[in-house]
Amino acid sequence: MSGNTFGTLFTVTTFGESHGPAIGCVVDGCPPGLELSEADIQLELDRRKPGTSRHVTQRQEPDTVEILSGVYQGKTTGTPIALLIRNQDQRSKDYGNITETFRPGHADFTYWNKYGIRDPRGGGRSSARLTAPVVGAAAIAKKWLKLKFGTEFKGGMTQLGDIVIPLESWGHTAANPFFAPTADQALITRLEDYMDALRKDGDSIGAKIDVVAQNVPVGLGEPIYDKLDAEIAYAMMGINAVKGVEIGAGFRCVAQKGSEHGDELTPEGFLSNNAGGILGGISTGQDITVSIAIKPTSSIRTPRRSVDKDGNPVMVETFGRHDPCVGIRATPIAEAMLALVLMDHVLRHRAQCGDVV
Amino acid sequence: MSGNTFGTLFTVTTFGESHGPAIGCVVDGCPPGLELSEADIQLELDRRKPGTSRHVTQRQEPDTVEILSGVYQGKTTGTPIALLIRNQDQRSKDYGNITETFRPGHADFTYWNKYGIRDPRGGGRSSARLTAPVVGAAAIAKKWLKLKFGTEFKGGMTQLGDIVIPLESWGHTAANPFFAPTADQALITRLEDYMDALRKDGDSIGAKIDVVAQNVPVGLGEPIYDKLDAEIAYAMMGINAVKGVEIGAGFRCVAQKGSEHGDELTPEGFLSNNAGGILGGISTGQDITVSIAIKPTSSIRTPRRSVDKDGNPVMVETFGRHDPCVGIRATPIAEAMLALVLMDHVLRHRAQCGDVV
Amino acid sequence: MSGNTFGTLFTVTTFGESHGPAIGCVVDGCPPGLELSEADIQLELDRRKPGTSRHVTQRQEPDTVEILSGVYQGKTTGTPIALLIRNQDQRSKDYGNITETFRPGHADFTYWNKYGIRDPRGGGRSSARLTAPVVGAAAIAKKWLKLKFGTEFKGGMTQLGDIVIPLESWGHTAANPFFAPTADQALITRLEDYMDALRKDGDSIGAKIDVVAQNVPVGLGEPIYDKLDAEIAYAMMGINAVKGVEIGAGFRCVAQKGSEHGDELTPEGFLSNNAGGILGGISTGQDITVSIAIKPTSSIRTPRRSVDKDGNPVMVETFGRHDPCVGIRATPIAEAMLALVLMDHVLRHRAQCGDVV
Amino acid sequence: MSGNTFGTLFTVTTFGESHGPAIGCVVDGCPPGLELSEADIQLELDRRKPGTSRHVTQRQEPDTVEILSGVYQGKTTGTPIALLIRNQDQRSKDYGNITETFRPGHADFTYWNKYGIRDPRGGGRSSARLTAPVVGAAAIAKKWLKLKFGTEFKGGMTQLGDIVIPLESWGHTAANPFFAPTADQALITRLEDYMDALRKDGDSIGAKIDVVAQNVPVGLGEPIYDKLDAEIAYAMMGINAVKGVEIGAGFRCVAQKGSEHGDELTPEGFLSNNAGGILGGISTGQDITVSIAIKPTSSIRTPRRSVDKDGNPVMVETFGRHDPCVGIRATPIAEAMLALVLMDHVLRHRAQCGDVV
Repeated sequence: MSGNTFGTLFTVTTFGESHGPAIGCVVDGCPPGLELSEADIQLELDRRKPGTSRHVTQRQEPDTVEILSGVYQGKTTGTPIALLIRNQDQRSKDYGNITETFRPGHADFTYWNKYGIRDPRGGGRSSARLTAPVVGAAAIAKKWLKLKFGTEFKGGMTQLGDIVIPLESWGHTAANPFFAPTADQALITRLEDYMDALRKDGDSIGAKIDVVAQNVPVGLGEPIYDKLDAEIAYAMMGINAVKGVEIGAGFRCVAQKGSEHGDELTPEGFLSNNAGGILGGISTGQDITVSIAIKPTSSIRTPRRSVDKDGNPVMVETFGRHDPCVGIRATPIAEAMLALVLMDHVLRHRAQCGDVV
Repeated sequence: MSGNTFGTLFTVTTFGESHGPAIGCVVDGCPPGLELSEADIQLELDRRKPGTSRHVTQRQEPDTVEILSGVYQGKTTGTPIALLIRNQDQRSKDYGNITETFRPGHADFTYWNKYGIRDPRGGGRSSARLTAPVVGAAAIAKKWLKLKFGTEFKGGMTQLGDIVIPLESWGHTAANPFFAPTADQALITRLEDYMDALRKDGDSIGAKIDVVAQNVPVGLGEPIYDKLDAEIAYAMMGINAVKGVEIGAGFRCVAQKGSEHGDELTPEGFLSNNAGGILGGISTGQDITVSIAIKPTSSIRTPRRSVDKDGNPVMVETFGRHDPCVGIRATPIAEAMLALVLMDHVLRHRAQCGDVV
Repeated sequence: MSGNTFGTLFTVTTFGESHGPAIGCVVDGCPPGLELSEADIQLELDRRKPGTSRHVTQRQEPDTVEILSGVYQGKTTGTPIALLIRNQDQRSKDYGNITETFRPGHADFTYWNKYGIRDPRGGGRSSARLTAPVVGAAAIAKKWLKLKFGTEFKGGMTQLGDIVIPLESWGHTAANPFFAPTADQALITRLEDYMDALRKDGDSIGAKIDVVAQNVPVGLGEPIYDKLDAEIAYAMMGINAVKGVEIGAGFRCVAQKGSEHGDELTPEGFLSNNAGGILGGISTGQDITVSIAIKPTSSIRTPRRSVDKDGNPVMVETFGRHDPCVGIRATPIAEAMLALVLMDHVLRHRAQCGDVV
Repeated sequence: MSGNTFGTLFTVTTFGESHGPAIGCVVDGCPPGLELSEADIQLELDRRKPGTSRHVTQRQEPDTVEILSGVYQGKTTGTPIALLIRNQDQRSKDYGNITETFRPGHADFTYWNKYGIRDPRGGGRSSARLTAPVVGAAAIAKKWLKLKFGTEFKGGMTQLGDIVIPLESWGHTAANPFFAPTADQALITRLEDYMDALRKDGDSIGAKIDVVAQNVPVGLGEPIYDKLDAEIAYAMMGINAVKGVEIGAGFRCVAQKGSEHGDELTPEGFLSNNAGGILGGISTGQDITVSIAIKPTSSIRTPRRSVDKDGNPVMVETFGRHDPCVGIRATPIAEAMLALVLMDHVLRHRAQCGDVV
C-alpha cells in the first residue's frame, strides 16, 4: 500500500536505495516448476546496467544478482523468489552539495516534503537504480511467457531530442549504444555527436521509447478499472522520468474518424492496429504497442535557481555521475514493466476464467 | 481483483450493465462526519448524463441517484456508501444486429474471447454508461477535498478532430455543449457544424481533453509504483476510449533539455510547471495538469469489414443511439477520476505519514 | 481496506445498515457461464432469515433478493453480480433509548469512539442483519463448488449454554428450530424449554456451532500467511459475536502427543482427522472441520451498568426485537463464510498453479 | 496474493526456506522518523532463536539480522525496510529420509500436492524457522507502538500437555526456558522432567499460549470483515501448528448468559473483560487477550504409518533436530503477530478517521 509492490498476483516488492548496502526484490506468485537460474536474470540486468558506453552514467556496478529463495534444484517451487544485488560503487561524496538544496525537476523536493527526511545519496530511493530489481523480476516473467505463449518483448528509442529515429527493425537495437532500431550508421553518429555536445554543455535531453509485446494471448485484462491498457499506463508512467504514455495510435486518435481508427477484422485477422492490441481493456491477440515520453535528467551541471530546506534562494548545479539522457537505458526497463503487466494478467485470467489458451 | 474496484483506501466498487436493471457502486473508506446528500451527487451526474444536446447520444436517462447506506442524519458514518441508479431507457432492440458480430474497434470481440459470453445490449459492461457511478462516487471525494484543502477540479475539450480549441478560461466550459474552454462563438459554431456533418456521415471523431486539479497539498503519492502520476495514468487510460495520457509537458518533454524542462524554484514558488505538479511521483503543490486522447466511437453507421462469432466475414454497421464523439461527455469523467486518485492518496498519506498539512 | 470487502479474488463487498433503505453486496470475480437465478440465492437467505420460530428475533423480513447485474440470459457473465435486499420492517422507535448510551458487550461503544458518529437504529452496520448479503453471495460460491467438485457444506449447533448436543447426523438440522444435528426429540424439547425460560428472564445465552466442508479438493490455501486455516479463522471470528475458532482437534491438541495427533496415511487415505482437513495451511482433501464459540446477545432486558456519551453512569436495558441466542441462526452464516473462503482459494490456486484437479 | 505478505498498510513480505541461503523480509509502510537500529530487531530475534535450552531444537542459528534499506542516519525514511538473515547451520543430510515420504501431520503432503515440487530440506518454506523474519519486522512495530501509545506485549505458556500453568505474572516468563508465567520452581521442574521424558520417547506435545496487548488505543479495527479480532484470529491461526484461537472469554462464552458475559461500564472503566478488549471488531481500550492452541510437532522419532510419493505404504520416523514442543518458542511469535495486527490497524485508522488519540 506504500507503493513498493508491483502487481496483484505476480507481485514484485522492491527495496533499497541508490547508495545503501543493497537493492533487491521479492517476487511472489511465480508458478512452480519453471527452470530458473541466476544467469537467466543476469542477462536482463546486463542490458540495463550502467557504464556500458560513454553516453550513460559512469558509475561502475556489475549488478550481480543472487537468488536467495524460491528455487530448488534449478526449478521454482511456488514460494517467493528473493533477488539480492549488493551496491558496489557508492561515491556518496559526489552528492554532498545537494543534501540541503532541491534540484529543479527532481524528487528531492517532494520526498523532503512528504517524509520530513530523505536519503540524499544518489537520489536515495528515487534513483533510477531502483529499476534494476524490477528488470530482474521481469526476466522471470519473460521466461515463463516465452515458454507458455511464445511471447516476445521488443523495444527501442524512436526519438532523442528533436532527432526522430525510424523503426527499421528491433534487431538493430543491440548494435548501438542507444537501443536505436536502425542500421543507419550516419544517424547513429549523429546521435553520438549530439550526446557528446550535450555532455560538454552539462545539460540533458528527453527521449521517446517504443515497446512491443508479440504473441500475446487474447483475453488478458480486467475490464472497467484494471484494463490492460490502464495497467500498462500505470506501469510505464511509474518509470522514473516518464511524462506521457500512448497505446496504439495514442494521441493520433484525436484527429482520427471512427471509420479510420477502428481496426477492421477479416477471417485472417485484423487489417490494422490502431488499438495497439487492446480493445475494451482486453488484449486482442495483436501486438501490444506502447510509446513513452521520457523527460531530460534533472541532475545537470548547468546552474539553476532553487531553494534550500529553509526556503532561501540558492543556485544549484549537480556534479557526480549521471545519465545525460535517462531514455538511453530505458528500453529494457519499459520491456520489463510490460512483461510484468502481462504476466500478472495471465494469472488473473486463470483465476476467474481458467487457463489461457 | 477482477477490476471492478477503483482505489485502495477510498474505494469505489461498481456494478451494472448498460441495459440491466440498474448501475451503481459502493464507496468505501469515506471519512466519517462529511455532510452528504443525494443532491451533492446528482449535481455531478447531471454534468455527465446523456441527451443534453444534439451532439451526444439521445438516450434519455435522468440518472437519478439513491443513497442506500453510509449516511445517517445527513452525515457520512464511515460505513460504505452505496449509490443506486436505475436504468430507464433500455431500447435493446436497437442493438439486435450486433449480438453475433464484432464491431471494429469495440470491446465486443475481446469480451467474447475472454468470457465466452457477453451481454451485447448497449455494450453491456463495456458501455461508457458505466462511468456514471464513478462520477457519482467522485462527487463525494470532490466535496471532501474542497472542504479540507480547497481543491478544485477543472477541465475541458482542447481539441476535436483537427480543430484545436485554445484554453482561455475553464469558466467557459459550462456555456457550450462541448466543455470547450473558450468564449469564441465562431469556434463553437465551427465545432457544431463539424459534429452535424459527422453525424450525417454516420461517422465519429476523436478528441483531446485537459483536466487540472488546483490547490493540491504537497506530498501526495507513493514513490516507486503507486506514484501519483502512475495512478493518474492508470485512472485516465481506464476511461473508455482513452489511448494516451500526458502529465505536465507530456510528449513535449522528448525534445526538451534539462535546463529547459526542470521547473526552477524561488522562495515564492515554482517558475514553471513542466512537471504538471508531480516530481518523483509525489505532488509538488502546483496544479496537476493532465491531457488525454480519446478515440472516435467504434459504433458507427458506416459499414465496415468484420467477422461473426464463427469467424465468417461480415459487414457491420451500427444503428441505435451513440455518441458520435465520446470525448464530448468525457470532461466530468476525467475530473472524477482525478478526484478519486487524489482522495485515495490523501488517505494513504495519512496512514503512513499522519495528517496532510 | 475499510473492511467491507471479503475475499481477494472472489470478493464480496457489502453495504447497508439494519434500518437503512437497503442492504446488499457486490460479488466480483465469479467465473462466467454459471447458471444463476434469484431462486438459487433466496434458498440460502431463507435459511438465515429472522422470524422463523419463537426462539429468534420477531422482526419480519422476507429478505427478498434482486440481482441487479452480472447475469445475462440466466448465466453469469464474469462481471460483478450485485445483490439488493430492501429493508422492510424497521421499527426504529424500539431503539430510541439506546442512542445516548452504550449497551454492555455491544459495538455501540466502539463505533462511537472510532467514528464519532453512529447509526444507532438496530445496531446500524454492526447488526447481525448484515450477514444476509454474505449468505446470499455464498449461495453463488456454494453452487459453483458443488458443480465443480461436489463440495457440500454442513453445519449445526453442538452446544447451547451448558447443553451439549451430540452430532448424530447433519440431516437432522432442518427438522428443528436450532439447527441441532440430532433426532432426539427430548433434547429438542429441553432446548425449547431452556430458550423459553431465558426469554422470560430477559437474558441471552451463548452457543457452539460446528461446520464442515465435504469433498474439498487437495491443495487449497496459501502457505505462510493466507493459510486456509488462517483465512477460515478470520472469516469465522469476523461473524458477529464469535469469540473462538477451532480447526480439527482445536484446543484438544494442547494435551495431545505427536504420536496421537498426527493423522496417519495409508494408500486408502488418512486414518483420522485431527488436522481438520488442513496441513501446513493447505487442504488435504479430507473434510474441513470447524468449531466456533458464539457469545450471548448483548441486547438484553436485564438492567446493567453502563455510561452515556458524556461518561455519566446509567442503567441500560434493551427493548425491541432481538435474538436471545444469536447462535441459533449462525449455522447458515458459518457455512457461508466457509464456502466463500474455499471459493476464493480455488481461484487463487488456479492463478498460480493452474486448474484444481 | 500468494500469501507471503502480512498486513495491508504496514506490510511484511517474507522470503526464504529453512535450508536455503537466507531468510528475510521487506517491511513496507513504516512511518518515517523512527529511530531504528539492528540492535532493536536483534533483541526480539534472540528471544525466538533456537538452541537456547535442551528443550528446543539444537540447530545453532545466531539469526543475525542486517538492515539493507529504509534507514538513514539511524532513522526510518518511510521507504521499505529490508531485513536479511543468512542461514548458517543447514545440516540437510539429516532430512534425507523424508524427501520421498510424507510425515503424518506435516505439510510435506500438501506442499507436494499443491505445487508438484517441494524443498524438503528442513521443511523448506513450511518450517517454523520462517517465523524469524516476522518477529524481526514486529520489533519495529513494537517500538513504534510503545513510543506512540505505550503499548506493551506480554505472553507465555499457560498449558503444556496436561499440565496447566497458572498465570502469576508475565514478569516470570524470562526466568525459565518455557516462557511460563510462574515463579513456582517445582512446577518448572515438573515441566523439565516432562520434556526430558518426552524427548527420550521420541515423541512431542502440544501447548497453550496466552498473549496480551496492554495500553491499546480505543477504536482500532475495521467493522464487518477486517474486525480486529478477525485479523488477530487470522494472524494467530497462521502461526505454524496453531489449531485454535480465543479472544477474551473464548469458548467459555458458550455457557455464559448475556447478563454475565457483557462487560459493564462505569465512569472509571469496564468492570470485567470477557470481550478481550474488542467489541464489534473494534478495540475498547482494555487489554487485548488472546489464547492459542499449538499442536505437537509432527516430526517425531516414533515410527508411524504413511505413504510415499507414489502412494505406497511406508513407515516414517523423523531424525534430525526438532523442537519436541513447538509451543515453547511460540510466545515471541504470538506477541509479534499481535503487534503487527495492531500496527496495521493504527495506520488503517489514521487513513479513514485521522490520527489515533
